[in-house]
Amino acid sequence: MNTLPSRLEDSTVPRPAFADWLGTTNDVTKRFLSAGRVPGLINMGGGLPAPETYPAAELAAIAQRAILEHPQECLGYGPIDGLIELRDVLAERFSTESLRLGRENVLITTSGMQGLDLLGKVLLEPGGLIAGQYPTYLGALDAWKSRSPTYRNIVLEDPDFEPVAVLAGAQFAYTVPNFSNPTGKLVGLEIRQALVDAAHATGTWLVEDDPYGGLHYDGAPLPRMIELSSRRRRGQIYDGPIVYMGTLSKEIAPGLRIGWVVAAPEMIDALTTAKQGSDMCTSGVTQRIALGALESGLIERLQPVIVALYRDRRDALCAALAEHLANSFTWEVPVGGMFVWAVARDPSVDTDRLWSVALEAGVCVAPSSVFDASGRNRRALRLNFTLNPPDKLAEGARRLAAAVRTMSKQG
Amino acid sequence: MNTLPSRLEDSTVPRPAFADWLGTTNDVTKRFLSAGRVPGLINMGGGLPAPETYPAAELAAIAQRAILEHPQECLGYGPIDGLIELRDVLAERFSTESLRLGRENVLITTSGMQGLDLLGKVLLEPGGLIAGQYPTYLGALDAWKSRSPTYRNIVLEDPDFEPVAVLAGAQFAYTVPNFSNPTGKLVGLEIRQALVDAAHATGTWLVEDDPYGGLHYDGAPLPRMIELSSRRRRGQIYDGPIVYMGTLSKEIAPGLRIGWVVAAPEMIDALTTAKQGSDMCTSGVTQRIALGALESGLIERLQPVIVALYRDRRDALCAALAEHLANSFTWEVPVGGMFVWAVARDPSVDTDRLWSVALEAGVCVAPSSVFDASGRNRRALRLNFTLNPPDKLAEGARRLAAAVRTMSKQG
Repeated sequence: MNTLPSRLEDSTVPRPAFADWLGTTNDVTKRFLSAGRVPGLINMGGGLPAPETYPAAELAAIAQRAILEHPQECLGYGPIDGLIELRDVLAERFSTESLRLGRENVLITTSGMQGLDLLGKVLLEPGGLIAGQYPTYLGALDAWKSRSPTYRNIVLEDPDFEPVAVLAGAQFAYTVPNFSNPTGKLVGLEIRQALVDAAHATGTWLVEDDPYGGLHYDGAPLPRMIELSSRRRRGQIYDGPIVYMGTLSKEIAPGLRIGWVVAAPEMIDALTTAKQGSDMCTSGVTQRIALGALESGLIERLQPVIVALYRDRRDALCAALAEHLANSFTWEVPVGGMFVWAVARDPSVDTDRLWSVALEAGVCVAPSSVFDASGRNRRALRLNFTLNPPDKLAEGARRLAAAVRTMSKQG
Repeated sequence: MNTLPSRLEDSTVPRPAFADWLGTTNDVTKRFLSAGRVPGLINMGGGLPAPETYPAAELAAIAQRAILEHPQECLGYGPIDGLIELRDVLAERFSTESLRLGRENVLITTSGMQGLDLLGKVLLEPGGLIAGQYPTYLGALDAWKSRSPTYRNIVLEDPDFEPVAVLAGAQFAYTVPNFSNPTGKLVGLEIRQALVDAAHATGTWLVEDDPYGGLHYDGAPLPRMIELSSRRRRGQIYDGPIVYMGTLSKEIAPGLRIGWVVAAPEMIDALTTAKQGSDMCTSGVTQRIALGALESGLIERLQPVIVALYRDRRDALCAALAEHLANSFTWEVPVGGMFVWAVARDPSVDTDRLWSVALEAGVCVAPSSVFDASGRNRRALRLNFTLNPPDKLAEGARRLAAAVRTMSKQG
């Protein structure tokens, strides 16, 4: 070894540059998560469940029992693809007459977000093409940013929408058919079938991201796209192009960070390889708690309580919007999920600006620009109605209306 | 919307290709983790703690209390960068007279592996250069594979080793100074100082990955590189080039999947942005359990028990190797950590082949090729001594010796 280098003045030495994609991120999610701690602010910006629905006593008991009764599985390293019993329970949970699933179709992920991250790792070379339901979930855009993808928008409402043309050549298509984030829209059966057919015709992987499927307030649930896909080739273990993703975050509690991917075994294998280099395996503690929650019927007991609570809150928000914002915004009443998508009547409104003004007025909402890979959509707002009780939602709508007035005075 | 496409025969439609890096992965880690379930096999392949050391009763009680007393923090979404109290406890834990740390220096990660993954995301463009201590931890190679990096080896034992030349131009340097994985080597004080000086001189980020620092069997611990770095600019919050990483996996239990990064605030900020798109936040349940374990002094109570157990096992393995394998391999007795690095006396030995033969003989070890980004090193084996009791380690060494004899007969 040669002699030590002289101690240069540190400040004169430049550090290696961070990767380019870091220069393109927004800090909206960070602000959403921290908005919960600003006193007095009404947070309608995030996609947060109502904390009073978290079944703390049941989960505390399940956690204690899990660690005592399964110490090695909870506390040791587990299989990369997940706890076998949990994969089996999920395979059975999502099986139907035509959809045959084994554990080889199921990967446990550390949150739904990790499923999106892993998908990007296994399918995206730099510049790779994603066909994304527009507007697009902010977290999905975040998950893929470090792979520097390009986007083609899937605009389901476009009368000229041609599924095969939109999917052809993309590495994957990304959709949230149940109560889309951000728009709250339910994708109808005909379009689901058309997307599934297009995925089979083009070979393109079709992601069916379904965090909100359990939050259905009116009417009957529609068949999943993975179910529609399975009807084409009955009788064999599923190996089609739909990549179905779910999570316990909305139906039990986000703090478990438990999600899953249900897909063809070749996709599960690839995602498992990516997971190996991402976090090696998901916590055995949280997986065993999830298994306990599923096996004890906790989701089924909670669901009607949560659905009734959120239905009331949706109604309260929509009533308050009708009272305070009907002149400046339009929206549809969502039949499920967590969000109302409010579009400004005036196309020249800049909701990025409105977002800042609204924050000062004491309400946090989500501006449409963050759900657009190009950042250009500045005409809408995403309003969450699940976190706050009706009186807070009404006050939030009043504050938002005040912000709209402030902005129109500023011109 | 146009008419639905005709239902083509699925099997004729090719799917989009997976990303190139997937073609380059090994399946060794997957086999390590599954080897635990092969009956009769002695698993010396992984880096697994002794499961009998997991403090299940204490952690079960901590988990139950945490969820009951802090339901919202455990079960809701938390801050991306981690539970504030846990960051504060870790900042205090690693502070010294010269090393001043605040929570802005600390990121909680979902396992130590996630810290490596995030580092790749924020520093590596495709083809980016990593200077890696050679041989290199397999998990680190895995974590960065999806960013397609290039490697320059840091060979600390090379008499011509020149730290500045090795670090210059790299995005970061990766080292495991305490009982390196795979070699078990302790990096001495002079080389630590030289690496730190080189990082300051070149600007290159220097990763000090320290999962094994608490597993010290002989002699006194050496100062951390981040501590050496802080001595250059006393009195201010740390903003130097060392990126220190730790985990609870070896000192409490891997199933918590709790790790941390201690670094300059600008690095913590970048990693936090990457974490946002990776898993949004780490589980509040496992973070609160970790906080409880740290605050109750559980690590300090466990450490002497674990250290005594592992010291005995190290001695048992080294004695068995001396009895059965001294003619075919050389090794140094490690002063800490989890591994003995055994190098074949005969340079023509192929330890990839030996690995397969040994598996058939009923013992799983780790071949050196997986710790070499080029895959070329086929002369050594990594032997874990922490998972198995002395009699199993002795039997493992006998089986390995039998495999060596089988292979030399096969020629």
